[in-house]
Amino acid sequence: MQDGGNEMLALLCEEARETALLESIEALLGWDERTYLPPAGGAFRAEQMTYLSGWIHRRRTDPRIGGWLDQLLDSPLAADPHSDSGATIRELNREYRRLVKLPPAFVEELTRASVLGQQAWTEARKNHDFPSFQPFLERIFTLKREQAEQWGYSNEPYDALLDDFEPGAQTAEVAETLESLRAGLAPLVAAIAECGRQAPSELLRRDYPRAAQQAFGEQAAAAIGFDFRRGRLDVTHHPFCSGLGPDDCRITTRFDERHFSSAFFGILHEAGHGMYDQGLRSDQFGLPPGSYISLGIHESQSRLWENLVGRSAAFWQHFFPQAQQHFPEALAGERWEDFWFAVNAVRPSLIRVEADEVTYNLHIIIRFELERAVLSGELTVGDLPQAWNERYRKYLGITPPGDGDGVLQDIHWSAGLVGYFPTYSLGNVFAAQFFRQAEQDLGDLTDRMGRGDFAPLKQWLNQHIHQVGRCYRASELVQHITGQPLSAEPMIQGLRDKLLPLYGLA
Amino acid sequence: MQDGGNEMLALLCEEARETALLESIEALLGWDERTYLPPAGGAFRAEQMTYLSGWIHRRRTDPRIGGWLDQLLDSPLAADPHSDSGATIRELNREYRRLVKLPPAFVEELTRASVLGQQAWTEARKNHDFPSFQPFLERIFTLKREQAEQWGYSNEPYDALLDDFEPGAQTAEVAETLESLRAGLAPLVAAIAECGRQAPSELLRRDYPRAAQQAFGEQAAAAIGFDFRRGRLDVTHHPFCSGLGPDDCRITTRFDERHFSSAFFGILHEAGHGMYDQGLRSDQFGLPPGSYISLGIHESQSRLWENLVGRSAAFWQHFFPQAQQHFPEALAGERWEDFWFAVNAVRPSLIRVEADEVTYNLHIIIRFELERAVLSGELTVGDLPQAWNERYRKYLGITPPGDGDGVLQDIHWSAGLVGYFPTYSLGNVFAAQFFRQAEQDLGDLTDRMGRGDFAPLKQWLNQHIHQVGRCYRASELVQHITGQPLSAEPMIQGLRDKLLPLYGLA
Repeated sequence: MQDGGNEMLALLCEEARETALLESIEALLGWDERTYLPPAGGAFRAEQMTYLSGWIHRRRTDPRIGGWLDQLLDSPLAADPHSDSGATIRELNREYRRLVKLPPAFVEELTRASVLGQQAWTEARKNHDFPSFQPFLERIFTLKREQAEQWGYSNEPYDALLDDFEPGAQTAEVAETLESLRAGLAPLVAAIAECGRQAPSELLRRDYPRAAQQAFGEQAAAAIGFDFRRGRLDVTHHPFCSGLGPDDCRITTRFDERHFSSAFFGILHEAGHGMYDQGLRSDQFGLPPGSYISLGIHESQSRLWENLVGRSAAFWQHFFPQAQQHFPEALAGERWEDFWFAVNAVRPSLIRVEADEVTYNLHIIIRFELERAVLSGELTVGDLPQAWNERYRKYLGITPPGDGDGVLQDIHWSAGLVGYFPTYSLGNVFAAQFFRQAEQDLGDLTDRMGRGDFAPLKQWLNQHIHQVGRCYRASELVQHITGQPLSAEPMIQGLRDKLLPLYGLA
Repeated sequence: MQDGGNEMLALLCEEARETALLESIEALLGWDERTYLPPAGGAFRAEQMTYLSGWIHRRRTDPRIGGWLDQLLDSPLAADPHSDSGATIRELNREYRRLVKLPPAFVEELTRASVLGQQAWTEARKNHDFPSFQPFLERIFTLKREQAEQWGYSNEPYDALLDDFEPGAQTAEVAETLESLRAGLAPLVAAIAECGRQAPSELLRRDYPRAAQQAFGEQAAAAIGFDFRRGRLDVTHHPFCSGLGPDDCRITTRFDERHFSSAFFGILHEAGHGMYDQGLRSDQFGLPPGSYISLGIHESQSRLWENLVGRSAAFWQHFFPQAQQHFPEALAGERWEDFWFAVNAVRPSLIRVEADEVTYNLHIIIRFELERAVLSGELTVGDLPQAWNERYRKYLGITPPGDGDGVLQDIHWSAGLVGYFPTYSLGNVFAAQFFRQAEQDLGDLTDRMGRGDFAPLKQWLNQHIHQVGRCYRASELVQHITGQPLSAEPMIQGLRDKLLPLYGLA
């Protein structure tokens, strides 16, 4: 390496960029599959995607990449881990090593088990029939344990799986954070349940015509900073956000004409994800400095806009008059304060994706505890239904009437996604830490939002998070931005500050 | 070739199928670009498509393919030109030889000239400014002449270019057909112009709400046999049909709320293209026996449904009551006979894409004569505006007020599409020949259509045309199906039979 590795790094980046180009094409195939693909087109779409993903995998595991990385890891370019070159070498190396550790036959087997698992889950959920799903889930957990061994871990197998979604995170640390979150939120939930005051939720269950919902949702998404010149909104049953290129971010939602929140907060949530994608450095597209850090950090962006902004008093002071114009029949004569209370109702419920901002995390904690216990052998897959129901009684005070609304409610495990759930709550925790810091840095954030000015917050996120790309790990980023380690305290405090007065408990 | 070439043919087909898989992905990128791509996403989409098309080109010109073909051409598998194997070898050989004859630098130069040409054309058309476009068009015609030399031809350079769109067609034969078409249609146009009777075109210019147009259009497309389980309809400024896979055909249209015909006949037209795609053999997807024959044959399918079916008396006897239900304000109390006359109005006009079924072909003939003359050197590019206007006066009796509505009206030449125009009229001619044969074979076709039963016609087209794929050339297919060579007579006769009575000239 006569030039200190510059030429080799350029080759590596060129290779990674081309692969990212193919991945962006694969992402379009996936987006189209979920939005507009004709019903009979599924089989051929699977052929296209299988071909492309096989090709991408061959490119990503090309031994030439391993050779370049071996040399670059020792070069001066890798010295500063937060520099573009240092992060690029570190992250591409991490990705390469993880990929080549898995034998192709194993990857195939895992894919097969996930496809079969999802099919079995779909049926089992409909029929509240856990036993029919149990052998499939056992197979999946067996393979996930094997995968953890292949990847390797420092303390427990769960570390290896968690690391796939939240690079660098340690299970023990996450467990501690979630436990302090539970300990902080449980009394809040209990106090709200006992106080006797009810949020006026009926306000949200009036007639909200679909076209007006779409217009208002797009208006709000644009107002907070989602760029519709570089993105769009479509309709799907399961909302998602997909970045198809540096200037092409697609978000989706679904509409319920008898419930305001479903589409609106879904749009804010996906727009938050989208603004992260749109805020990444386009000159580093496909490379670590132009990539998101982790699922937890991605989720922090969606939750920040959905909850910390979208469920704030300032937000509705500004937006409620506009909502009244869009929904005159539902909202004429109503007060913004009541509407704001309605969107902040807290009440234990059965289904995670419909849960409120507070109890949501209890759903996550249950899943995290269970999957960790199964992976370590503390519980068997067969124990899950009973253990699930016990924890729902204990943490939320409710019992699922059947396994379809209990242990079978989420697709994740059936699809082989073990170690994924905690990133949802980590996102909430990160979001609160970032938001508190933004408030301190900006000074007049609430006033600005009350006047409909969201640009300072967006710019703050752009500068401190989006433009950083993957040059920092999640825990490093939090420390770097806030001067504090990962902590549930800002989230607990933020929720108490908002909810106690609303429920007359201040 | 110990096995008579079977193994080699399998390799060749495997290769072609994989390339077709990539082309289907490229087609999705193109469809999305024209339907839903966010405004700022164009540059990155171009990068994706350039990468993919470069890779497809490398695959298609892989010397291994040439080696296999060299051997297979002499094998027994190539003996029967209409068999699957014979057609596969012949057509893949044709494609391979044409591709490798063009030096990569030339292909690049032609692409560049087309991109620049289209940009210059867009401006020039807007400003009626032919001189600003002239140098770009001269460059394009120079390159097209060069391309014709590289490909080679038997009689004149135009043969080589025409052959790209209409394999096997000879310029002289096409010229003869178009001339007999002109000779047959000119008196009809003149007689209609002089007869004094006017079609009640105002019927079509009433209020046709967009949602109702879409519902009626989709209903009609489904009724004639477009399979919406294997396809869909979207909205674009320039309507098109794109086959994205064996079970995924996308058509588009545009809506004009003050004009019934634009969307409705556009939908029938694109549905006709789509039914050809949907009728191809899916077991031969990506291979010649599962591919369309030529642009002319493709156009025959769209024109057959748009004009021979969609502008027939039987069609409107059946559909007019449904149209009245969709458009009660516009059509209540009206008679189907008047509506039918309205959609068959014949009147010389300036713009090809808005022309009626009869005069449309005169627009085509003018373009064909001019591009052929420029290619042979008989005319220069600088002569085009004057020559264009002279022919419009002579053939259609009208003079364009400016070059924007004259010589600059079509994008084709600016995009390097020389030799393309005649396929539009060949499509009309083929359609009439096929339709006459279908009438003879089926016996009660008109009665069936009047009762809304389009299945026999669709099945006839499936069997005789779609399922044949590219095992026949266009002229062979016409001969094979009708027992006659290419002939304008059925089309001229069909138009006289329909229009003379409508205009009281029978």
